[in-house]
Amino acid sequence: MISVVLLGAGNVATHLYKAFSNSENISITQWYNRTRASISSYANDVDITDSLDKLKEADIYIMAVSDDCIEQLSIDLPFTNRFVVHTSGSVAMHDIDKKNKIGVFYPLQTFSKEAEIDFSEVPICVEVYEKENLQLLIDLAKAVNCKPHKITTEQRQTLHLAAVFVNNFTNQLYRIGHEICETKNIEFEILHPLIEETAKKIQHMSPFMAQTGPAKRNDKRTIKRQLKLIEKEEHEAIYKMLTTSIKKTHGIRSTRIKSQKKEN
Amino acid sequence: MISVVLLGAGNVATHLYKAFSNSENISITQWYNRTRASISSYANDVDITDSLDKLKEADIYIMAVSDDCIEQLSIDLPFTNRFVVHTSGSVAMHDIDKKNKIGVFYPLQTFSKEAEIDFSEVPICVEVYEKENLQLLIDLAKAVNCKPHKITTEQRQTLHLAAVFVNNFTNQLYRIGHEICETKNIEFEILHPLIEETAKKIQHMSPFMAQTGPAKRNDKRTIKRQLKLIEKEEHEAIYKMLTTSIKKTHGIRSTRIKSQKKEN
Ligand SMILES: NC(=O)c1ccc[n+]([C@@H]2O[C@H](COP(=O)([O-])OP(=O)(O)OC[C@H]3O[C@@H](n4cnc5c(N)ncnc54)[C@H](OP(=O)(O)O)[C@@H]3O)[C@@H](O)[C@H]2O)c1
Ligand SMILES: NC(=O)c1ccc[n+]([C@@H]2O[C@H](COP(=O)([O-])OP(=O)(O)OC[C@H]3O[C@@H](n4cnc5c(N)ncnc54)[C@H](OP(=O)(O)O)[C@@H]3O)[C@@H](O)[C@H]2O)c1
Repeated sequence: MISVVLLGAGNVATHLYKAFSNSENISITQWYNRTRASISSYANDVDITDSLDKLKEADIYIMAVSDDCIEQLSIDLPFTNRFVVHTSGSVAMHDIDKKNKIGVFYPLQTFSKEAEIDFSEVPICVEVYEKENLQLLIDLAKAVNCKPHKITTEQRQTLHLAAVFVNNFTNQLYRIGHEICETKNIEFEILHPLIEETAKKIQHMSPFMAQTGPAKRNDKRTIKRQLKLIEKEEHEAIYKMLTTSIKKTHGIRSTRIKSQKKEN
Repeated sequence: MISVVLLGAGNVATHLYKAFSNSENISITQWYNRTRASISSYANDVDITDSLDKLKEADIYIMAVSDDCIEQLSIDLPFTNRFVVHTSGSVAMHDIDKKNKIGVFYPLQTFSKEAEIDFSEVPICVEVYEKENLQLLIDLAKAVNCKPHKITTEQRQTLHLAAVFVNNFTNQLYRIGHEICETKNIEFEILHPLIEETAKKIQHMSPFMAQTGPAKRNDKRTIKRQLKLIEKEEHEAIYKMLTTSIKKTHGIRSTRIKSQKKEN
């Protein structure tokens, strides 16, 4: 049985709480948040607190709090020599105060409180400073049926960067698709199956192999026609940049794409 | 029973052939392709031909051929006054020779021969010149359990443009994620669950609401750190442009992001 104290009550902490509660091999010793109100509805199920001084002893302390308060929170912890980790993709492990043993437990997924997640599908990237704690993090990941991946700080930060491309930036392309549809009174929902299939396709084919479309085919007529159709300068710039990027990836020599006058 | 002659043997034609074959309400009168070899393996199941002169009579002729040969193929058809459609997202309906009745049957999905598709999930955008043929296209879509959407040429071309953003450009972001992982010996597969969840999320939440990450949070430290981590100038330019785009969408004032020296 692994005993855990959870710190924070945001997207990640809430999903961790659920996954830990459902595991037979994890006991949640305590749930801390600086704002008690966000966790008070759980008071019947778990020991909750908003006071660092009242933190109990546990095998592991998981700080699932905003990136920029991880360091300070680790300094404020009123104990030493225990095992303290954060859940961030980008914060350095060494930002955690060394008065405790330190590590990272980074769930590589996008969480929001409202969206249900099959937690067992979440890859967990783990990192420790003191080797003897590695197994505990691996066991913790396995206790919620996740696949643990031992990685370095540099690899974690690289993964987080890649995640920004495939998650945040991709989502912004969805947003632009939505905007484009709205200008012509088309329901964005009609694109949902295509969006799902695009994501599914690369689960068994490399993105390189999966590419299709006018840029990949170097179909200049369609590219020209589409650039004319675009109404916003910002969309035009993104269209051109990603078209050029696709051409480069697939070894197509780029001719300069002419500018069209657009509103901004 | 709707009788169909299918022209072309590429990605779309092959998926249409399978879907039509499985429908009780469609009979495939003939399958034409200029290169006989690509369809010869189907000779036991369907009447195949590589000669336009041998085309038989049918309710509808579907030209699922490359965009730039649609017009010529429609001119080459040795009959008049029959119903001829293409399957393209971007070619004008009026590119089809008016000696026949004309229309469009555009399946809004990404097809490749190798990837299985649940065809019933594919939205079909239909368009006709002569009103009396609209019902036939709607019935054809329904006969393969698809949802038909009656749209205008402008709407179809707009949808195709939006599709380029959410499909081709998104896939290029996956490709960049793959490249970034490779530089640090990380398996790209570790990002698969995130990619799937990103696509799933917007099936019940707008992309606007679904956005997270450093740009949306205006987390300047992480953005700066990530820009330093990026090795390719091209990736840096895309990172900056999409970060700015996200900020704009979410009403965050952009400060100029400084350049970092990179290989190209
Ligand atoms: N969301 C994701 O998709 C995701 C995925 C992987 C990793 N992560 C990482 O997981 C961590 C948490 O992210 P999240 O999305 O769960 O954040 P979040 O939803 O914004 O929640 C932030 C939590 O941090 C607490 N907090 C903020 N400032 C604090 C301070 N000065 N002192 C003490 N507590 C403070 C908040 O407390 P209050 O309730 O009192 O405001 C809240 O409980 C971050 O390191 C993030 O990088 C996030
Ligand atoms: N792929 C998609 O995801 C997708 C999705 C929606 C709509 N579409 C549209 O569907 C149509 C077909 O696309 P696709 O991906 O199936 O194309 P494809 O796989 O490249 O196949 C092209 C077909 O067109 C034939 N063809 C090419 N040039 C020809 C010519 N000059 N004369 C006669 N036939 C010719 C080819 O015949 P050979 O076998 O002899 O080369 C082949 O059968 C296009 O209009 C496309 O825009 C495609």
